Amino acid sequence: MEKSPEEQQPIKAFGWAARDVSGLLAPFNFSRRATGEKDVQIKILYCGICHSDLHCAKNEWGSSKYPIVPGHEIVGVVTEVGSNVTKFKVGDKAGVGCMVGSCLSCNSCANNLENYCKKIIPTYNSIYYDATPTFGGYSDVFVANEHFVVRIPENLPLDASAPLLCAGITTYSPLRYFGLDKPSMHVGVVGLGGLGHVAVKFAKALGVKVTVISTSAHKKNEALEHLGADSFLVSTDKDQMQVAVDTMDGILDTVSAVHPLLPLISLLKSHGKLVMLGAPDRPLEFPVFPMLAGRKILAGSGIGGMKETQEMLDFAAENNIVADIEVIPMDYVNTAMERLARADARYRFVIDIGNTLKTA
Amino acid sequence: MEKSPEEQQPIKAFGWAARDVSGLLAPFNFSRRATGEKDVQIKILYCGICHSDLHCAKNEWGSSKYPIVPGHEIVGVVTEVGSNVTKFKVGDKAGVGCMVGSCLSCNSCANNLENYCKKIIPTYNSIYYDATPTFGGYSDVFVANEHFVVRIPENLPLDASAPLLCAGITTYSPLRYFGLDKPSMHVGVVGLGGLGHVAVKFAKALGVKVTVISTSAHKKNEALEHLGADSFLVSTDKDQMQVAVDTMDGILDTVSAVHPLLPLISLLKSHGKLVMLGAPDRPLEFPVFPMLAGRKILAGSGIGGMKETQEMLDFAAENNIVADIEVIPMDYVNTAMERLARADARYRFVIDIGNTLKTA
Repeated sequence: MEKSPEEQQPIKAFGWAARDVSGLLAPFNFSRRATGEKDVQIKILYCGICHSDLHCAKNEWGSSKYPIVPGHEIVGVVTEVGSNVTKFKVGDKAGVGCMVGSCLSCNSCANNLENYCKKIIPTYNSIYYDATPTFGGYSDVFVANEHFVVRIPENLPLDASAPLLCAGITTYSPLRYFGLDKPSMHVGVVGLGGLGHVAVKFAKALGVKVTVISTSAHKKNEALEHLGADSFLVSTDKDQMQVAVDTMDGILDTVSAVHPLLPLISLLKSHGKLVMLGAPDRPLEFPVFPMLAGRKILAGSGIGGMKETQEMLDFAAENNIVADIEVIPMDYVNTAMERLARADARYRFVIDIGNTLKTA
Repeated sequence: MEKSPEEQQPIKAFGWAARDVSGLLAPFNFSRRATGEKDVQIKILYCGICHSDLHCAKNEWGSSKYPIVPGHEIVGVVTEVGSNVTKFKVGDKAGVGCMVGSCLSCNSCANNLENYCKKIIPTYNSIYYDATPTFGGYSDVFVANEHFVVRIPENLPLDASAPLLCAGITTYSPLRYFGLDKPSMHVGVVGLGGLGHVAVKFAKALGVKVTVISTSAHKKNEALEHLGADSFLVSTDKDQMQVAVDTMDGILDTVSAVHPLLPLISLLKSHGKLVMLGAPDRPLEFPVFPMLAGRKILAGSGIGGMKETQEMLDFAAENNIVADIEVIPMDYVNTAMERLARADARYRFVIDIGNTLKTA
């Protein structure tokens, strides 16, 4: 008979889990593996709430295997290290993002792109090498191979840096890979949510001119005055959009709802790049002729590799970049999920695990 | 009163034109400008029939202004040069492709990408700087600014090199720009027509492994044995396609009919590039998630700049690359158009202008 989640592993763990498609989270006793030779054990202090957590808790992508402990924006303090661990010592501030395993031998892994490994093991809702489920960061303790653990720079606050582990790297990586990181450039950011607001900060720190593109006119002041964007376009305002046609070198599109691409493609200069970071659940319409006429590129990008995640954190530390967050107690998580579903978050909820996750 | 096409310019010209959406071509007297300081006058010997000619003759893109003399795969012999012409002398073999003008000052033009200039003047169905219509190469004489004229290398046959001016550069340019030109690479070519068959030749000359992807199983022998492709996939055969999943660095998609992209995207490795060269008249479906999961790119590319067009011709000469053609007399053009419409061409019709275009 299969062991219960509490008995599968030697280390007692406690978190909140979704048990069914309601997505409702509730206290959950489970277990973690003992700290292996290359493993780091982390006392979790904060965990960001990513929109993926919501999708997954409710099985909106059809791949959920309950019970699910969500959370892949995890920060905390190292409490134990394995005998062959070289990067961490007890007491270090450490983070875990969206993945806890990859083959480490394929072409992607060899190029520090573990995030594109076909054998990637996501931080939760997956199965680890030991055949037990992976459980995420809405919990008190974590054990991970040090390869998938990053160092949180000293000057970054732990709570507000948690979202960098997913939202941060998801926006930083494409700015670098697609060459949208040159000071003379003009980059659009579509959608001002968890990803979008961090994208603005990274792009500005890279010296790029940033235009926020949003359906919500009321976000203009926030974008310009608080986040430092250079301009703001209401995507439903045809006149505004028309003026900006053919002005952008690239666009990061963070919207995961189905939306029209043609107006965004039109904003691109020739050879411009529209990079999709959100994953609509249905195909979008792809108008071919405008792509040909300007040799434009439509691309996708998903998080980033471990090396680049560390680089992103170090860059964030140098440039004082953190997410704008609302810190919540653990027992507020279901309310936070509801608010997230109706886009009522500014801009990321972060669960104060260390102070508010109490064993039942 | 506006002057007739015969009277607008001083040089008498004769060709075949479409007068209405039937697209039927018939003899047409018109005129060309006198050879200006920077102009080259060319006696046209051959002109390829591009699928665009058919679209345009029938107003299938909605932008046709009759009468239209199609033809933008033009080769011939220089018969006169202007006083400031430096690249050509009388007797040179010369070619004109898809454009006869651009602003020469914008960012694209400054980077030898006149093809992406917003003020590009296409070779036919456009208006030149002197406010007269541009007429294409289904005609006896051509006058063009030398900037838009290329040299046809001595060892290339004039008839079979004509299609290189459009089909050649359209396939060569993306192989170079998207970095699909490394010997270790594997590139797919979708559609084995005018563009596709030349794409195979260029890719093979670059040392790339080439797989032809086609709906037509009967093209297999031709692709492998005649064109030298390394393998062949019937795109409707799910088993064959499945075996090739995740094997290609890039794909040139030459199909202009609406078709599914997901099976092609699946063939790409991570970071692979699907480049659209045909322009379907309706949007295609763009599945976002597979793009994110492999950081894949969907792009468009249209012809190439003048510098690269010359480079392509020189590369073709070094590697003995020409199009596979069926040379036809001028008065066969309407039949050729019908055959082209039903994909009965192997692979490009070229009109023998020099020997068969007779003044009515």
